[in-house]
Amino acid sequence: MTLPKTMRALVQLHDGYAGTQTGPDLADPSPFVALRDIPVPTPGKGQAVIKVQLAAVNPSDIHFIKGEYGQPRVAGQPAGFEGVGEVVAGDTPLLGQRVSFFAGASGTWAEYAMTDISGLIPCRPDLSDVDAAGQLVNPLTAIAMFDIVKESGADSFVLNAAGSQLGKLLIALGRDHGIAPIAVVRRAAQADALRALGAADVIVTGEADPLAQAHAAFKAHKPRILLDAVGDQFTADLFFAMPNGARWVNYGKLSTDAPKLAELGQLIFQSKRIEGFWLTRWMKEVDPARVPQAFATIQERFVTGSWTTDVAGIVPLSATMTGLAQVLAKPDGKAFIDPTA
Amino acid sequence: MTLPKTMRALVQLHDGYAGTQTGPDLADPSPFVALRDIPVPTPGKGQAVIKVQLAAVNPSDIHFIKGEYGQPRVAGQPAGFEGVGEVVAGDTPLLGQRVSFFAGASGTWAEYAMTDISGLIPCRPDLSDVDAAGQLVNPLTAIAMFDIVKESGADSFVLNAAGSQLGKLLIALGRDHGIAPIAVVRRAAQADALRALGAADVIVTGEADPLAQAHAAFKAHKPRILLDAVGDQFTADLFFAMPNGARWVNYGKLSTDAPKLAELGQLIFQSKRIEGFWLTRWMKEVDPARVPQAFATIQERFVTGSWTTDVAGIVPLSATMTGLAQVLAKPDGKAFIDPTA
Repeated sequence: MTLPKTMRALVQLHDGYAGTQTGPDLADPSPFVALRDIPVPTPGKGQAVIKVQLAAVNPSDIHFIKGEYGQPRVAGQPAGFEGVGEVVAGDTPLLGQRVSFFAGASGTWAEYAMTDISGLIPCRPDLSDVDAAGQLVNPLTAIAMFDIVKESGADSFVLNAAGSQLGKLLIALGRDHGIAPIAVVRRAAQADALRALGAADVIVTGEADPLAQAHAAFKAHKPRILLDAVGDQFTADLFFAMPNGARWVNYGKLSTDAPKLAELGQLIFQSKRIEGFWLTRWMKEVDPARVPQAFATIQERFVTGSWTTDVAGIVPLSATMTGLAQVLAKPDGKAFIDPTA
Repeated sequence: MTLPKTMRALVQLHDGYAGTQTGPDLADPSPFVALRDIPVPTPGKGQAVIKVQLAAVNPSDIHFIKGEYGQPRVAGQPAGFEGVGEVVAGDTPLLGQRVSFFAGASGTWAEYAMTDISGLIPCRPDLSDVDAAGQLVNPLTAIAMFDIVKESGADSFVLNAAGSQLGKLLIALGRDHGIAPIAVVRRAAQADALRALGAADVIVTGEADPLAQAHAAFKAHKPRILLDAVGDQFTADLFFAMPNGARWVNYGKLSTDAPKLAELGQLIFQSKRIEGFWLTRWMKEVDPARVPQAFATIQERFVTGSWTTDVAGIVPLSATMTGLAQVLAKPDGKAFIDPTA
């Protein structure tokens, strides 16, 4: 297959880190990325080029282009961490096949992306493109963090930003494994849907005395793990309200708070601890057999409907500079970019 | 041996917790304890009574009588967690012998104390009373936390309140095992003595830009463990200045700060974590063979001079209400109570 010389891509405008912490909101992408025609990437040894069919937009992508993620930006390079597409170049038996992938070498918000051959994930034919485009960051994170919950032996866990795509995946896992999820959300309007999905209890931070709601829920369910995508003061308060042995596992920073540790003594006397989760590290440290096994589980769950992808909107690549922000502003569901349009 | 019916003891005036966090200072003991004549404790099954020869005064004792420790007070009971004395009652082959002990059932700031037989630690004849009276809380904590340092594989560790008795024990352990101790102290006057003892570097918080001192020390030594008795904002700042993989191990709360986690993302991207250490839990969870082995090490280190106990003063039990505060106010060294005087 002969590839074109150039492609349309959303490229990063800045190098390195911004030194700011403004959270994952994006009212206007133009300070961070621009739509440009750039050369199609050429695969080196062990690399593959993928013609992108659909790319995901995750909070980590927004953190990244704003220079607020744990990896430095490279000006002129396409953004976008994950997507699905057809392998069009590279020394791999997957040539011509549909794969999900994490774009290690050239981002997915582009007509073509590039990554290591070892990271290509073959997709079942019955897996939809929206499920396939987002099967890595959120679903693999859900599986990996739920492994932590299971290994802890807890009968219950707490998760915040629970109305997010990842939150819903975690609630469904808790439901299916009999480990009671306690969901923390901002708006009361989200509570019923999460209860219907399988949340054993819902704490609404926008309502009166959310900490009293938490005390009641924690007394009933005795959660031991707090999966935290927010990192605000209320999360710290939740952690200190949890029973002995609680672990606060932070994996994202939706808030710009610097939470205070008001009861540090609980770490001593109640065996509590605070740690982080990063999918990239998990993939390096986990038993290698766990990863393909996890992708088989992920695809099976989507195809059978025990997981679903809520789509906030699919924005054509050509319209991202004007259209992406409004899809991201929707309170629920996931945004995608379609590089073929 | 016939025991008297009553004894002189410093008894606690309050039950439970105070709900305050005022730190381990004690200007006046009279709001918390009183000198009284009370019945000598009677041993139940598995318990021993010890005629106390010398009792230690540790920061945890002060936290405890103020109602700010992780265990509830019991009004009318003698205070004092550790000491040395002769076993005078109880079904044990150690009857008549000198033992160090942690007073589980009736405190050491009294002529007689009571604890479980299983917790009696026989003392070598060549171990001095001041070393024996304080061989549990500080030395065993030092051994246990230094096990954490060794198991982490770190080439260096950081400790604050480094001029304390426990701090000096840890510095000597680092020196003797070739793991560079970085000592954090408040006053420049303490620095030379700690360097002479074996500190690879000293950060003086009372001097200009202590965080810059820390950056230089961390760059040179790459510490991975932070042993923290203070829990203030500067400790949090130190933690975030440490290299990847750093662990903040809190074991005390000399400060009343509620430290802010300004860079929570380091837990995700730099594999850092925050945890607590409590000797009581360590003793329950550690391989039981480690404890007698640790006490053999402790006594050997004191007898051979690789550890020394710096004595701030020995206060007669009869004079504690007026004399204890002034000994505790000394900047260095450990306070003791002599119940025989």
